[in-house]
Amino acid sequence: MARILVINPNTTASMTETIGEAARSVAAATTEIVATNPEDGPVSIENHYDEAMSAAAMLQVVRQGEADGYDAFVIACFGDPGLTAAREVASGPVIGIAEAAMHAASFIATKFSVVTTLSRTCVIAEHLVRNYGMEHFCAGIRACDVPVLELENEESGAYQLIRDECLRAIAEDGAGAIVLGCGGMADLTLKLQADIGIPVIDGVTAAVKFAEALVDLGLKTSKHGDLDYPGPKKYTGAFSQYAPGKN
Amino acid sequence: MARILVINPNTTASMTETIGEAARSVAAATTEIVATNPEDGPVSIENHYDEAMSAAAMLQVVRQGEADGYDAFVIACFGDPGLTAAREVASGPVIGIAEAAMHAASFIATKFSVVTTLSRTCVIAEHLVRNYGMEHFCAGIRACDVPVLELENEESGAYQLIRDECLRAIAEDGAGAIVLGCGGMADLTLKLQADIGIPVIDGVTAAVKFAEALVDLGLKTSKHGDLDYPGPKKYTGAFSQYAPGKN
Amino acid sequence: MARILVINPNTTASMTETIGEAARSVAAATTEIVATNPEDGPVSIENHYDEAMSAAAMLQVVRQGEADGYDAFVIACFGDPGLTAAREVASGPVIGIAEAAMHAASFIATKFSVVTTLSRTCVIAEHLVRNYGMEHFCAGIRACDVPVLELENEESGAYQLIRDECLRAIAEDGAGAIVLGCGGMADLTLKLQADIGIPVIDGVTAAVKFAEALVDLGLKTSKHGDLDYPGPKKYTGAFSQYAPGKN
Amino acid sequence: MARILVINPNTTASMTETIGEAARSVAAATTEIVATNPEDGPVSIENHYDEAMSAAAMLQVVRQGEADGYDAFVIACFGDPGLTAAREVASGPVIGIAEAAMHAASFIATKFSVVTTLSRTCVIAEHLVRNYGMEHFCAGIRACDVPVLELENEESGAYQLIRDECLRAIAEDGAGAIVLGCGGMADLTLKLQADIGIPVIDGVTAAVKFAEALVDLGLKTSKHGDLDYPGPKKYTGAFSQYAPGKN
Amino acid sequence: MARILVINPNTTASMTETIGEAARSVAAATTEIVATNPEDGPVSIENHYDEAMSAAAMLQVVRQGEADGYDAFVIACFGDPGLTAAREVASGPVIGIAEAAMHAASFIATKFSVVTTLSRTCVIAEHLVRNYGMEHFCAGIRACDVPVLELENEESGAYQLIRDECLRAIAEDGAGAIVLGCGGMADLTLKLQADIGIPVIDGVTAAVKFAEALVDLGLKTSKHGDLDYPGPKKYTGAFSQYAPGKN
Amino acid sequence: MARILVINPNTTASMTETIGEAARSVAAATTEIVATNPEDGPVSIENHYDEAMSAAAMLQVVRQGEADGYDAFVIACFGDPGLTAAREVASGPVIGIAEAAMHAASFIATKFSVVTTLSRTCVIAEHLVRNYGMEHFCAGIRACDVPVLELENEESGAYQLIRDECLRAIAEDGAGAIVLGCGGMADLTLKLQADIGIPVIDGVTAAVKFAEALVDLGLKTSKHGDLDYPGPKKYTGAFSQYAPGKN
Repeated sequence: MARILVINPNTTASMTETIGEAARSVAAATTEIVATNPEDGPVSIENHYDEAMSAAAMLQVVRQGEADGYDAFVIACFGDPGLTAAREVASGPVIGIAEAAMHAASFIATKFSVVTTLSRTCVIAEHLVRNYGMEHFCAGIRACDVPVLELENEESGAYQLIRDECLRAIAEDGAGAIVLGCGGMADLTLKLQADIGIPVIDGVTAAVKFAEALVDLGLKTSKHGDLDYPGPKKYTGAFSQYAPGKN
Repeated sequence: MARILVINPNTTASMTETIGEAARSVAAATTEIVATNPEDGPVSIENHYDEAMSAAAMLQVVRQGEADGYDAFVIACFGDPGLTAAREVASGPVIGIAEAAMHAASFIATKFSVVTTLSRTCVIAEHLVRNYGMEHFCAGIRACDVPVLELENEESGAYQLIRDECLRAIAEDGAGAIVLGCGGMADLTLKLQADIGIPVIDGVTAAVKFAEALVDLGLKTSKHGDLDYPGPKKYTGAFSQYAPGKN
Repeated sequence: MARILVINPNTTASMTETIGEAARSVAAATTEIVATNPEDGPVSIENHYDEAMSAAAMLQVVRQGEADGYDAFVIACFGDPGLTAAREVASGPVIGIAEAAMHAASFIATKFSVVTTLSRTCVIAEHLVRNYGMEHFCAGIRACDVPVLELENEESGAYQLIRDECLRAIAEDGAGAIVLGCGGMADLTLKLQADIGIPVIDGVTAAVKFAEALVDLGLKTSKHGDLDYPGPKKYTGAFSQYAPGKN
Repeated sequence: MARILVINPNTTASMTETIGEAARSVAAATTEIVATNPEDGPVSIENHYDEAMSAAAMLQVVRQGEADGYDAFVIACFGDPGLTAAREVASGPVIGIAEAAMHAASFIATKFSVVTTLSRTCVIAEHLVRNYGMEHFCAGIRACDVPVLELENEESGAYQLIRDECLRAIAEDGAGAIVLGCGGMADLTLKLQADIGIPVIDGVTAAVKFAEALVDLGLKTSKHGDLDYPGPKKYTGAFSQYAPGKN
Repeated sequence: MARILVINPNTTASMTETIGEAARSVAAATTEIVATNPEDGPVSIENHYDEAMSAAAMLQVVRQGEADGYDAFVIACFGDPGLTAAREVASGPVIGIAEAAMHAASFIATKFSVVTTLSRTCVIAEHLVRNYGMEHFCAGIRACDVPVLELENEESGAYQLIRDECLRAIAEDGAGAIVLGCGGMADLTLKLQADIGIPVIDGVTAAVKFAEALVDLGLKTSKHGDLDYPGPKKYTGAFSQYAPGKN
Repeated sequence: MARILVINPNTTASMTETIGEAARSVAAATTEIVATNPEDGPVSIENHYDEAMSAAAMLQVVRQGEADGYDAFVIACFGDPGLTAAREVASGPVIGIAEAAMHAASFIATKFSVVTTLSRTCVIAEHLVRNYGMEHFCAGIRACDVPVLELENEESGAYQLIRDECLRAIAEDGAGAIVLGCGGMADLTLKLQADIGIPVIDGVTAAVKFAEALVDLGLKTSKHGDLDYPGPKKYTGAFSQYAPGKN
């Protein structure tokens, strides 16, 4: 039995809900999913600056979750902001949705393409591909230039743009699977998969299942070495409340 | 609810039992684990030749399992023999234990070391590290020069040799987690982890959980492109029975 | 004086003949070429499953050849199936035709493209490129979607398809040389080279010459470490005849 | 004439002073150096969590500096926290001190070693090496396990520990130059260089000179593509003040 | 105050002048720029043979410059011919213009494209990209097939060809900055930058500023290890005058 | 029947003789070996400067050889100086001895170590390893700090130093084969191999056999693209005689 905290690092509650629903749709009966978001920070994450700012707030949610005894954490933004830092402040496993989706894709296809929202975030995905060792598996990173919050707007035509980009990934990249590049796309997965005819992987659901798996395996974040808890230390000014070493 | 076929590619039934027990120890209540091994092939897998020969027999077990409707497959030998070929003949996910263990390790540590049986198999592990994109994460591949079947012999001192090699991996490689390099070590995991104080990852249990995860996610092996089913084709001689295209 | 066993890992005798003729066409006067194929296995090799199955049978041919005192071995299928395992059971050098062709190409051009048969085998070639360290040299891997056995059918238009793909490799990849991606293309080499105007490399002939070279250099497969002979070991069931340690 | 804002991302004023002095010691007569630090955040940066939190505060200093018309920015912490995000919010060049030191080292030696403070930060340096493409040049990353703030304590023996580690880097890694792995080491550079006999590179001074160079070249951060200014967007809660799009 | 010798490795005096003017246009008031070229060698450098031959003559200019007490050297040909050898015979820093331009580009953009003269030199640039660790940053290497000396011919239409290739680099490669692939393009930089709207980097000016930076930092070429001065040694025949160990 | 010009790029005739003897010892009866050296240049090649200077002279020998109708060329210095430029001016294949030895080693072992003369040349070998794609195969590069010309002095103890370094490569690197890192070691190969018990590869003999192989295969240096002959061009001063385009 696992209690998993699924954190949407942006502050848009409706997206948190979409993410939570996706998470619950795959969770084991014995798993408790709590979906949440920081109160502080950007309403969407669409560039390095948003990422950096959201990470700071998200990390406090992880710390609170750690104090509350959650068994595992999911960071539900495709840039996996603050992932390594989150691992330092958590004892249980922490999984990013980009990480989960790419790893899952490598289990079922020899090549995947990422289909994401804005062109300017492609370089973030590319950086992750490199750091997760997925260069051999990633056949392409494609943007459909839909702003994140437009995903919730049914009249935006977002679905069609995403589907068309997926079809181009199949034709032009030779992708055998699609990795969705935004937590806010979680509810499109099944429809997309049916429409395009190859596996479509949403990181939110993949991360939940991998987090459950690690909990069931009794595996926790290694505290030997560079993911050890930050020692107690003074933080100054408005950030003094964020000083580590209190949990 | 998932039915998972866990295949020990060597033909030693006692090792299959160890593997099956490990698999069942972590499986969800709703998962049915069947552990099996080919009737034909090497009693242990300790070099490239053993690997190649065991793959041929193991693939027939996968094909039979596919005909029997299994949802997913685990290949329980650390060299992941025949993994890509197995994916061609299976509709559900197929996970290798080296693959599963390395991916799991990368979720909970920045560096892991592999501790395996014989020195001559290190190059096989090294090849896998490269092909799974784990170069950044793998801090070392170490052998304790215990033959595979000696793992079952309590008087062989195998446990002490493995534990000492793990301790050297921590001290010399800076490993934050240990990946066990043999399916036959599955029953040592918890004791080792307690003894050495950092996470120890057995591929059998990790693969079972990841296979469950993929099944629960509705993800199957991509049949678009290079993992598509082999088409019907004539095989000659003693291998005519192995011709594809019949399931 | 070298005796070289050229093994077509598929069981189509007419292709073995084509390969043997190509091999003999370049062999030194003092070299004895014997071209052979296993009796057991697929009539063509067009996916991972075919590869795995053919490797098992091919390895027995190598073992018999070792017993018969051959000085070197050529594995004449572009996927180089079972190459490392073959090196374990042979004392003399073993050369794969993909390996030979890529290495030869890197000696005479800064970039080569592979032109192969079926799209689904491209990932196999890509894997080889990576494992042979040829990423810098390989400008493209292209399929003309001709089934292997159609190469023998003069009315199939195979030649034109291959030539056109070579021309595209020159124009689009900037290839300075072409590597032919199938042992069955060996007899097209000279005509293609004349037609397209850049060097065309067939792996069968390249492998024969490199095998001769190694024999003349007195170089044998290293038996120090991971290519050492497999020790004696029990194999069970229908594969008991394949147990190592008898030669 | 350049105005450069040198930002110590931690909040220890005495370290900011050390950094500022180092910066001014090499700046051109026509360059104005202003050294500063955020008011909010950790007093030292020694792990991923510190890095993530300091980045959020540091980015506001960059934004204020941008509003104040600075020509270039130096991020004076060896982990280069928030570097890419800082580039988004700045029009002039932004240089990290790890980046500057490694690039400078590659101009004057074929191999350098990094000598840093705490072991747990080595993985951060390793990540930077990979992302800056310095794998070929970096011969080692070594920690002398001195906490950052102990560098200021003359009685801590920090200097001797650092020097000894440098000597080991020469002897064991074959390093031709040393990259100092902490902004707080800036004042040790010349003494170290004299003591160990090979070039010692401090990132603060290197970054200042490279920033001046870029300003003199008229080169600014590219606003075409992924380093473009973040568009206006709502930030909520305590972070609403950090919303982009106001400068 | 720095004295920098800027060496055009080809023997075309008018190009040396262009290069010298570019160098002086960015040099600090306290820097003395001397632009020169060998008397011996090719009038332009457009292939590996030209490179090898020019390196031999250029190295003598460096040695003379070393004897004359120059503080730093710039090699002003985009292939950076003889760069490592030049570092051996110089005590001060030696910077190649390809090296400088690529490093500068990586400071201000996540991706750059190289736009060079002749297609056949692209492989030289590719080799440099790999050896400088710039694979992650280089989005494309493009030739506009203008012979080097045509750059000086205003009626050749060279400017338009270069500009169009730059625009294609933006559109097709996603380049955020352009690296000019020839020292002879130095005078086009500002006009190009204005025309295409993204940063354009000329290696000559970048190398001069980086050389100044290293001189101001007190950094010299490491003489520990493989860049140490060549010891005295006999050279025979027409090259006896080139024997090292005399300065 | 092949005529192969084996070029010792240094000007020491006694070493040329050693190299020529080694070459002839493996050449086919139908091969004519001519061993030569430039008249101009260093008496030994032990650093980047020697390499650069020897390349200029060596290239003229290749050009003369091309005019004299040689079928192939071997560059018999382990740094493979001027290899790519030599390919431009030759129609037949050109093989470097480091290249040949490393490729041969990769055919018979999974790991090799290079044992070379001086420590300062290790970085040259490392560069070649990277450019030939041999990173996976090269387990170590080791110097025994014997000056090149001491190899000819029987009283220097060079043999013992080399042998001991080879033994360390086996024990510490896990090397399965040794690549000798100097053309002047060619006569030690067989004795070393007997003494250390694993394959020892001399590049001179390997290059001769690979050159023969390519000639017999009818493969010539690709003249499509970047290895095309340099066009006619003016060279000035003392180098005017080296202008290309005359053969």
